[in-house]
Amino acid sequence: MDYRKESLKLHAEWRGKIEVTPRVEVDSREKLSLAYTPGVAEPCLAIQQDPEKSFELTRRWNTVPVITDGTAVLGLGDIGPEAGMPVMEGKCALFKAFGGVDAIPLCIRSKDTDEIVRTIELLAGSFGGINLEDIAAPRCFEIERRLIEDLDIPVFHDDQHGTAVVTAAALLNALRLVGKKIEGFRAVINGAGAAGIAIAKYLLKMQAGDIILCDRQGILCAGDGKLTAAKEEIAQLTNREKKTGTLADAMRGADVFIGVSGPNCVTKEMIKSMARDAIVFACANPTPEISREDALEAGAAVVGTGSSEKPNQINNVLVFPGLFRGALDVRASKINFEMMYAASEAIASCVGEKELTRDYILPYAYDLAAHEKVAKAVAEAARRTKVAKL
Amino acid sequence: MDYRKESLKLHAEWRGKIEVTPRVEVDSREKLSLAYTPGVAEPCLAIQQDPEKSFELTRRWNTVPVITDGTAVLGLGDIGPEAGMPVMEGKCALFKAFGGVDAIPLCIRSKDTDEIVRTIELLAGSFGGINLEDIAAPRCFEIERRLIEDLDIPVFHDDQHGTAVVTAAALLNALRLVGKKIEGFRAVINGAGAAGIAIAKYLLKMQAGDIILCDRQGILCAGDGKLTAAKEEIAQLTNREKKTGTLADAMRGADVFIGVSGPNCVTKEMIKSMARDAIVFACANPTPEISREDALEAGAAVVGTGSSEKPNQINNVLVFPGLFRGALDVRASKINFEMMYAASEAIASCVGEKELTRDYILPYAYDLAAHEKVAKAVAEAARRTKVAKL
Repeated sequence: MDYRKESLKLHAEWRGKIEVTPRVEVDSREKLSLAYTPGVAEPCLAIQQDPEKSFELTRRWNTVPVITDGTAVLGLGDIGPEAGMPVMEGKCALFKAFGGVDAIPLCIRSKDTDEIVRTIELLAGSFGGINLEDIAAPRCFEIERRLIEDLDIPVFHDDQHGTAVVTAAALLNALRLVGKKIEGFRAVINGAGAAGIAIAKYLLKMQAGDIILCDRQGILCAGDGKLTAAKEEIAQLTNREKKTGTLADAMRGADVFIGVSGPNCVTKEMIKSMARDAIVFACANPTPEISREDALEAGAAVVGTGSSEKPNQINNVLVFPGLFRGALDVRASKINFEMMYAASEAIASCVGEKELTRDYILPYAYDLAAHEKVAKAVAEAARRTKVAKL
Repeated sequence: MDYRKESLKLHAEWRGKIEVTPRVEVDSREKLSLAYTPGVAEPCLAIQQDPEKSFELTRRWNTVPVITDGTAVLGLGDIGPEAGMPVMEGKCALFKAFGGVDAIPLCIRSKDTDEIVRTIELLAGSFGGINLEDIAAPRCFEIERRLIEDLDIPVFHDDQHGTAVVTAAALLNALRLVGKKIEGFRAVINGAGAAGIAIAKYLLKMQAGDIILCDRQGILCAGDGKLTAAKEEIAQLTNREKKTGTLADAMRGADVFIGVSGPNCVTKEMIKSMARDAIVFACANPTPEISREDALEAGAAVVGTGSSEKPNQINNVLVFPGLFRGALDVRASKINFEMMYAASEAIASCVGEKELTRDYILPYAYDLAAHEKVAKAVAEAARRTKVAKL
């Protein structure tokens, strides 16, 4: 099936993938008086006395906006806020279907960091958490950092951390399969945008061995002088041997390749130059860094991609519904690494010892049991790390 | 029943009166690929080419935020954005139940006009129209005016215009009942806030005879020197004889009294001083300017109140669902007087000649046929006045 052509046709038929529906009846005088005036005055006054009650007397506890400025939508780039809406709406549908979260899509007509931060802060009293989406780097880093500092509800940029969480889950099972440990490995990440940098930081927190990041200019090396602030910062944390050179140079002898970059930038020869039992996650969409078939032919032990058409789809749909479900259920004030790592482990654990093969390292995105497992693990981690209010 | 006590209990059980639900299935690989990646890229690109397509390929066409700053909630005043949420949520439930509109509640943590305007403008690409709610005067006037100027989707402050539309509908039928014409009458409006001023302007557009507005200081008279800008402006359009004095002075000989003020400020004597067949709409909530019983005893021909417990509830729930339904259906760029007046007439017409009595001048708020009639009339008026894009 040509998904894109068919999808356009279906979107024109659907005219929207979500809707807002009442949870109360209002079809009589009495019911109206209870759900609306005059009865509604009492819960209003109760919240005025104690604003925390807004989590108990309204839908705030379960409501999360999916917010974009439309500058980094899918692999399409800066297509504008309105054009990002089909993705945001789709995400909202998945939030409810897999996590029971009431998510609303909001597109912001601004590319100004201060203005985006301020807009979201002004609206935060309506929500139980904030999901940032498809905002370009490096703006996304500052926006997220400032919102986390200023708000006492979870703020989560899915393109960074959702991607890191699911990539780590895939990695945990791939390593299990080939019998390697994360502590000793050397990984190459191609793509030093929001996702690449977040994955690198995440793997470092997992005590990964050395990591080398590459962008279009090749290996990121601290002190290079030409790097942006975000790239210089991650370069200082990675590439301990201060290597320089091309992506091919970086990949020689590496145990893991993680691509969050663009199409066809990895050759069979580059895969062949990797260490024994190489793990290759070529996640560029729709065309990966190297095709699954070529990577396997070149000797990769495990291959994952971003495609739903192939085995081992590394898809952050596995992450955000359960992650927010868990965080909202215990009214977490933030989403910390422990909660994210609990999600990675929960996802990995969905594939039993006997099921695990090179063609099946992750549960399917629509596996409800996996989402429930993630939610439970995240809630427990929030309680354990004392960021849960419930 | 003690609605307020019972309502608080129910709100704690409901934990939210609305939810967001998917309109598409996502429980298989294929369905996910169509509603989300990779298929979703195609509608995104179609909207990038032509942003107007966001009305066809997403839920934008049917989505309206109910936005407040929490400064004039019900009769409760400035209770804060979070505390306004139960009202906003209730309104969203009514929007869907009576108008099929997908409405989302947004509370803004700011009392700054510029900031509120900017926040809403930045989000406008997500919506088909904007419903402003419970924002204090005079700020609400400037916020609405600037949004109407800057945006090409309908912007509607319900506390002003919804109230005016339903009051006019009640008035049309009350006048029909007592056999008076709007052109000749003299009306007194008590309360010169957002609702009072909007009703005055609306009645003037209906070619009403003279209107006198009163606030707590008594009759508004142009050139008084002590009036706010908004009050001076309406004073210049009303009170042609430049009367001064108290509310009691204003009411002497008046045909119509409309109260959008506070409890118990009208006496039986004041009602008795009105013209023959006086019409009294005492809409203050929860306690009216004068009780229905007292007004009738004092000789009023028709009495309406804001209470759902009494006959003739003058409730803007009769207005906003159908008004937005009609405006959205034809993708109106604004909501003009002609559309609002079509709504007033449609509401009035729901009470047939033979049904019309002093105890039944308006349809019930939960009368679905009334809402449909309003929607149809509004859509027709939008087309007739050339503000409809469809």
